[in-house]
Amino acid sequence: MMTMKSRLSLMALTLTLGALPAQSQTTTPPTAKLNPPDSQADLKPVVNTGGTVMNFDWPMLKIGMAEYSEGPTGVTVIRFGRKVLGAVDVRGGGPGTVNTEFLDLYYNVPEVDSVVFSGGSWYGLESVTAVNTALKDEGARTGNWDNIGLAVGSIIYDFGDRRLNEIYPDKKLAQAALRAAQTGIFRNGSAGAGRNTRSGYYFGCNAPSGQGGAFKQLGDLKVAAFTVVNAFGVVVDRDGKVKACYGGDGWPKELEVKDLMQNLPDSQKPGWTVPGGPKRNTTISLIVVNQKMDPSELKRLAVQVHTSMARGLQPYATMGDGDVMYAISTAEIDAPEGMTNPQLGGIASEVMWDAILNSVPEQPPLPVVTSAPQVTEKAMRAYAGDYRFSNIVSVKVTAEGGKLYAQATGERKAYNVPKDAKVELIAYKDGVFMVPGRYPTVLDFTTKGKLVMNPGQWQQTAAKK
Amino acid sequence: MMTMKSRLSLMALTLTLGALPAQSQTTTPPTAKLNPPDSQADLKPVVNTGGTVMNFDWPMLKIGMAEYSEGPTGVTVIRFGRKVLGAVDVRGGGPGTVNTEFLDLYYNVPEVDSVVFSGGSWYGLESVTAVNTALKDEGARTGNWDNIGLAVGSIIYDFGDRRLNEIYPDKKLAQAALRAAQTGIFRNGSAGAGRNTRSGYYFGCNAPSGQGGAFKQLGDLKVAAFTVVNAFGVVVDRDGKVKACYGGDGWPKELEVKDLMQNLPDSQKPGWTVPGGPKRNTTISLIVVNQKMDPSELKRLAVQVHTSMARGLQPYATMGDGDVMYAISTAEIDAPEGMTNPQLGGIASEVMWDAILNSVPEQPPLPVVTSAPQVTEKAMRAYAGDYRFSNIVSVKVTAEGGKLYAQATGERKAYNVPKDAKVELIAYKDGVFMVPGRYPTVLDFTTKGKLVMNPGQWQQTAAKK
Amino acid sequence: MMTMKSRLSLMALTLTLGALPAQSQTTTPPTAKLNPPDSQADLKPVVNTGGTVMNFDWPMLKIGMAEYSEGPTGVTVIRFGRKVLGAVDVRGGGPGTVNTEFLDLYYNVPEVDSVVFSGGSWYGLESVTAVNTALKDEGARTGNWDNIGLAVGSIIYDFGDRRLNEIYPDKKLAQAALRAAQTGIFRNGSAGAGRNTRSGYYFGCNAPSGQGGAFKQLGDLKVAAFTVVNAFGVVVDRDGKVKACYGGDGWPKELEVKDLMQNLPDSQKPGWTVPGGPKRNTTISLIVVNQKMDPSELKRLAVQVHTSMARGLQPYATMGDGDVMYAISTAEIDAPEGMTNPQLGGIASEVMWDAILNSVPEQPPLPVVTSAPQVTEKAMRAYAGDYRFSNIVSVKVTAEGGKLYAQATGERKAYNVPKDAKVELIAYKDGVFMVPGRYPTVLDFTTKGKLVMNPGQWQQTAAKK
Amino acid sequence: MMTMKSRLSLMALTLTLGALPAQSQTTTPPTAKLNPPDSQADLKPVVNTGGTVMNFDWPMLKIGMAEYSEGPTGVTVIRFGRKVLGAVDVRGGGPGTVNTEFLDLYYNVPEVDSVVFSGGSWYGLESVTAVNTALKDEGARTGNWDNIGLAVGSIIYDFGDRRLNEIYPDKKLAQAALRAAQTGIFRNGSAGAGRNTRSGYYFGCNAPSGQGGAFKQLGDLKVAAFTVVNAFGVVVDRDGKVKACYGGDGWPKELEVKDLMQNLPDSQKPGWTVPGGPKRNTTISLIVVNQKMDPSELKRLAVQVHTSMARGLQPYATMGDGDVMYAISTAEIDAPEGMTNPQLGGIASEVMWDAILNSVPEQPPLPVVTSAPQVTEKAMRAYAGDYRFSNIVSVKVTAEGGKLYAQATGERKAYNVPKDAKVELIAYKDGVFMVPGRYPTVLDFTTKGKLVMNPGQWQQTAAKK
Repeated sequence: MMTMKSRLSLMALTLTLGALPAQSQTTTPPTAKLNPPDSQADLKPVVNTGGTVMNFDWPMLKIGMAEYSEGPTGVTVIRFGRKVLGAVDVRGGGPGTVNTEFLDLYYNVPEVDSVVFSGGSWYGLESVTAVNTALKDEGARTGNWDNIGLAVGSIIYDFGDRRLNEIYPDKKLAQAALRAAQTGIFRNGSAGAGRNTRSGYYFGCNAPSGQGGAFKQLGDLKVAAFTVVNAFGVVVDRDGKVKACYGGDGWPKELEVKDLMQNLPDSQKPGWTVPGGPKRNTTISLIVVNQKMDPSELKRLAVQVHTSMARGLQPYATMGDGDVMYAISTAEIDAPEGMTNPQLGGIASEVMWDAILNSVPEQPPLPVVTSAPQVTEKAMRAYAGDYRFSNIVSVKVTAEGGKLYAQATGERKAYNVPKDAKVELIAYKDGVFMVPGRYPTVLDFTTKGKLVMNPGQWQQTAAKK
Repeated sequence: MMTMKSRLSLMALTLTLGALPAQSQTTTPPTAKLNPPDSQADLKPVVNTGGTVMNFDWPMLKIGMAEYSEGPTGVTVIRFGRKVLGAVDVRGGGPGTVNTEFLDLYYNVPEVDSVVFSGGSWYGLESVTAVNTALKDEGARTGNWDNIGLAVGSIIYDFGDRRLNEIYPDKKLAQAALRAAQTGIFRNGSAGAGRNTRSGYYFGCNAPSGQGGAFKQLGDLKVAAFTVVNAFGVVVDRDGKVKACYGGDGWPKELEVKDLMQNLPDSQKPGWTVPGGPKRNTTISLIVVNQKMDPSELKRLAVQVHTSMARGLQPYATMGDGDVMYAISTAEIDAPEGMTNPQLGGIASEVMWDAILNSVPEQPPLPVVTSAPQVTEKAMRAYAGDYRFSNIVSVKVTAEGGKLYAQATGERKAYNVPKDAKVELIAYKDGVFMVPGRYPTVLDFTTKGKLVMNPGQWQQTAAKK
Repeated sequence: MMTMKSRLSLMALTLTLGALPAQSQTTTPPTAKLNPPDSQADLKPVVNTGGTVMNFDWPMLKIGMAEYSEGPTGVTVIRFGRKVLGAVDVRGGGPGTVNTEFLDLYYNVPEVDSVVFSGGSWYGLESVTAVNTALKDEGARTGNWDNIGLAVGSIIYDFGDRRLNEIYPDKKLAQAALRAAQTGIFRNGSAGAGRNTRSGYYFGCNAPSGQGGAFKQLGDLKVAAFTVVNAFGVVVDRDGKVKACYGGDGWPKELEVKDLMQNLPDSQKPGWTVPGGPKRNTTISLIVVNQKMDPSELKRLAVQVHTSMARGLQPYATMGDGDVMYAISTAEIDAPEGMTNPQLGGIASEVMWDAILNSVPEQPPLPVVTSAPQVTEKAMRAYAGDYRFSNIVSVKVTAEGGKLYAQATGERKAYNVPKDAKVELIAYKDGVFMVPGRYPTVLDFTTKGKLVMNPGQWQQTAAKK
Repeated sequence: MMTMKSRLSLMALTLTLGALPAQSQTTTPPTAKLNPPDSQADLKPVVNTGGTVMNFDWPMLKIGMAEYSEGPTGVTVIRFGRKVLGAVDVRGGGPGTVNTEFLDLYYNVPEVDSVVFSGGSWYGLESVTAVNTALKDEGARTGNWDNIGLAVGSIIYDFGDRRLNEIYPDKKLAQAALRAAQTGIFRNGSAGAGRNTRSGYYFGCNAPSGQGGAFKQLGDLKVAAFTVVNAFGVVVDRDGKVKACYGGDGWPKELEVKDLMQNLPDSQKPGWTVPGGPKRNTTISLIVVNQKMDPSELKRLAVQVHTSMARGLQPYATMGDGDVMYAISTAEIDAPEGMTNPQLGGIASEVMWDAILNSVPEQPPLPVVTSAPQVTEKAMRAYAGDYRFSNIVSVKVTAEGGKLYAQATGERKAYNVPKDAKVELIAYKDGVFMVPGRYPTVLDFTTKGKLVMNPGQWQQTAAKK
């Protein structure tokens, strides 16, 4: 027990907030429905919730966020007050995109209505097209001649080992986000498309991540950056510190990225193995400026800022990432006197780094067993049963010889609960158990007939059959 | 009257069928609902209907088509029996695409599940993402790890002056098409995504067009081509003849493309004017081979075949077209002995030309006024009224001094019925009138309380208010 | 003998001139040095010679051509009167390019000084960079700050089986061409970079080809097209006729391209085999307009015109071609009223087709043996000996039993003279023999101590050792 | 004087060597010819000189470097022992490239012979083509069929304010470098293509820079990185320190990049103005691995490593940079067990960072005036005269009232010596004067009849007329 405890104490729990937005307020996480749905049709969108509110002053941008808490997964819609000029830079090895070909034609015509970021891997692209058809259905873009909507967007992969179902942001969710769009507010952390992202899997960190925004005004010039960080690499601050990581065995609490990078391949050991290859991470980003730019300038801005992100996310743009960057000019002001493209790019790159840092949510506390509670056999028998999380994952809990065990019975394992053998559950608090490990799993039986896995912001709930 | 008649007789009505598919049968066009819907939600998909059936033997391909006859508009889904290798070549100046970036990474991994073609301009991209999410919802692609669906696809613009509403292929329609997919059958002409396309607007031809398929087998080698022809240019056969065109004043009935091209800019006069610029045409195509190819070979095949289409469609790949070509290798056989990439490309290019020719539907007969019927004043008063086609287009019919007039009252004109003045309707058959012109418009009042514009395959129906 | 004769008579000898330039005059082909050089250093440039002169009126363009007749091979330099805006479209599977990356940045800044076309495969790229450094050396572009030259350009492959040495256009040759540049004159046919090109190898045609230019003025609008046709495909006129081809056994004298294309793969049989794969052809082209265009418009023009070339060259843009198209706007006039990009593209595409047709040089007459001359044994012994064409190719001629034989003794065969066995030479005229075949080879011994292969425009000369 | 002195003492002179190569030895800088040449033809290549020798063990790589010391400018040729697979990633806004189009076709065929880096802006591309033609001229690549050489390469801009002439690496220089190529040796710092590069102009640092290499072996896996750093941004070490910079007024001696970046736009003030825009910087790089990779993997490696360079060079990939990255696989070993592409990319990124750090040469000492020497009027009169550096730059030195003055008389100023007025020269050492400033200029008259500007590694010499 001591050994486990000391191992746990080595795990990184750091939450260092990035550059803070001018004003902020925290909202309570939404309550997820306890019954896992069998189909997307039963899910109810929850809008503009979660994360830490960032306020900023830019009436031309309306932002809406929506989530299915059962996933959890979500979508973030940035809608512009009029058609704007857009550019795109795709850099990663596993992108999912809608309409990027058109942006690369360099037409000097504002055409973009909206940029959409979504969870759900390639399925989440439905969010992008749904925003566009909603623009038509609501009458903003009738489809008559030139009045045709153009939403562009990209997705991140938030399936796999980070949740126990494959719910994705669909048409209903995306259109709810669009309808909820408002000016001046963005939610940093576990919200919108960043509702269930991770960072640092490259080093096995696997830390809860999110979406981040940042805003800067210099005279009349406005620059905003938004990013959904589901990076293969780790989030790094300007002093080279890793912002969030479940550390490996024996790792120091405070990690320097240079140590991780220079100790490759050892810093990747014992090593993760991803079924089906590593194309499962992505950082999707948007930089918006209010100065006029021509298409080639805007593309250069996208390239410079996108490249600069290799500082705040290390490594970046790997084959395992589908990194995409959009750049938008709202063309509200002329370029400030003397402002060159590289200078604007430098300023915007720092705003983007702030956005990256703001994406890191409060990390969940590690379960530390101080004095293990006594659990009666009767209680154990009450906990036992078959719990169903989704079509893919179920867990069988059994009580034997005064001990409680769990074993996954669906298509795949359930976090630390394996498929091929049962694992002993360690009592942790009243009605709460854990399976230790680099990423310890908590099983909460305190709600009757339910099993809540990792209670908190990213919890997954199963109903007893 | 004679003048008009003689002008009409000059119009090209040619229907010359391209290389005929092995077996074919014609189906009756679907009956469209008479009440124009107020929203997409009220529309009912009609599947696998219309056009001329082409049978072919390739179990690895399942094809489904669905349409909203009220548009009319539609979608065509080509689904593969397993994940296949794909490449893409975007050539036109106004593409609408989903997931083409990924295809251009040249991974030697079969990833594509389905290629989707759709009407509805950028709104129709919802069809592409809908097919993908349907793959998940139906369980074929669970979303778990590597079992993630990948549908790619493109759209054509079928709004504007070719119909009186802006109904688009949506999630419901696309998923209906996917569920209706079957092997061995493709529908040439006005069906699926080609339900309401035109060709030749470049020369003012504006001829009804469609989708075309062709198939060739050489030993074990199978090559199939599919294309949705909404081309700015005209369809040209192997003898240089234009296949379909509403000809200009004084044009010969049989047109040679070389005459049109060499007489530029005169052959474009008096000239069309497209509100909002010319990016309103597109030809989207797919070439499928069953031999194994590596990604660079497949891309070269896409490029060669796509370029070759400049023969069957002239001009091609203009700024006014959003031309996109997909190439798929199902990898069922090794490359035939001695088959080089350029040779395969040459063979496939001819199959594609056949597909282009097969896309041309039977052209609607021109209304010819031989002996004008007498229309009573009472009948005229019965025809008079306000007819609503859609949110965008209504027509007001008035009877004055023994003549019938029409004027468009919505956002825009209704074919030849103008907005800024009333136009006299010429009696044509009992209860049927016309507005003459290069593209004569027929107004049919024979159904009580309805006005049917251009009755037939592409008719539009209004209810009297 | 009759058999051979009848086979020969089936060979296509067609020379049909394409659209003729306004004024033209033919010049005598340059006399090549008889001693094959051992190194590039010994070669002397010959400038502005060969082909058929085309005059046109456009002071902003200066064109220089230079060749090494010993190759033969050459270079064509198009130099603009000031820096101009450029775009590029690479379409083929085997391009050789200098500075195309820069052109694809879409900067709205005129930067191009010169477009260079060259023989010599990748070695010929030295021509492109040589033109640029010559701009500096001559002081036109000092290299100080913004006064930096930009030459862009591409190459064609003219080595291999079409000549007996691998002489390439080098710095010396390219700079000679630049210095010889003049306004108003282009040379169609076997001149400049088109000095030793072929077309139609795809079908085994292997016909002598060249470079072609064409010019059109519509009001103030000027459009010029230049192309170096070394196409894998055949040159096709607007009636679908193949312009030049050494036909296969039993082929009709007049070939229709549709017959060749639709009879694939048979029309490629008995089939050619190219050592080292087929990436040995290329058509490199330039379209110039004098109207102002922005970068995206210019790129669209390049794409449309490049794609249209699939009509005049069939097939086009195969893996075996390195096709590259440049588009230049000299920005001398505003766009003519009402001129759309697709319209300009259509006009320019026809000018380009004229240029393609103008590229076809007079085809060499086929050697027809009517009454074979008597050759004495003494004469034969005089012809016998070792003849050296280059480091790569030598031919040994022997007289045995009243017959003359030849055998290649270098790295590879010499046209129809094989390496692995001797071949009998057929007397043809006094001192002139031939080796029959689809591409008959003529051996001329009439100059003492020399062997001239295929005397005429593309002759190769060997000195007796 | 004190003011100037204290300003000078603030300037950054830091030389912190990056990760040191296993073995190293310093060589004396080459002696440049004192008479500035009037043409490239008079220049003599100096090979394999300068910089700090880095030894490494990889027989497959031969590297040659050559320079014109009069420029100074140079070229670096990396030649492979056989044809190898290559990929390229162009990221900057002002690239100069040869044959990058071909590399982007993803053919799984090793084709690259050599990667060439050169000074001389677009003129330096002659170096790339010259290496290729030398491969032919020397017989390694005969040009016969498949035996065709392929050299690819890029250039950096080293003209403008960093030297007083526009000498460029030409065919002669590049071929000298090729012939001098040897295994196991690379020269870090001011050598080869990095002979006269700068870094940090973005912040006005303008620090002498160079080329850098680094090598790592992990078991059988070999990774080498080479880079020519002419970056707009500053070189940054793993602790965020700027490695070399002429600091601005009041700047601390030790600069942190985060301070520079976060204080934009102030950290760019008083601001530089580059005539003709900022596209004057470039970092060109090469990563070589000995493991087998397919084309898409190699491209991903190029992308990941290239993006990672945004850490060691800040900012990176701006419109003012022409950054290009080549990746080469020599395919000598199979991929090590368990090595993923992102892992290899991470390792290679660190090797590249080492190469960046190794590129920084020893910075020239700042001239500090401690006790000003007495200069006689006679000596001053002897120094007076007209000195010619090149066709572009001359300096007139005059003695008046016991003071010495200088004024530039050519096309542009000579470092701190202005064109529009004379500037007083401050005595510094016997026969040595200076013009103070952020980038102080030293004028050395100690060689009779000569004026040496900034004596040392990057000195420029003028002859008295």
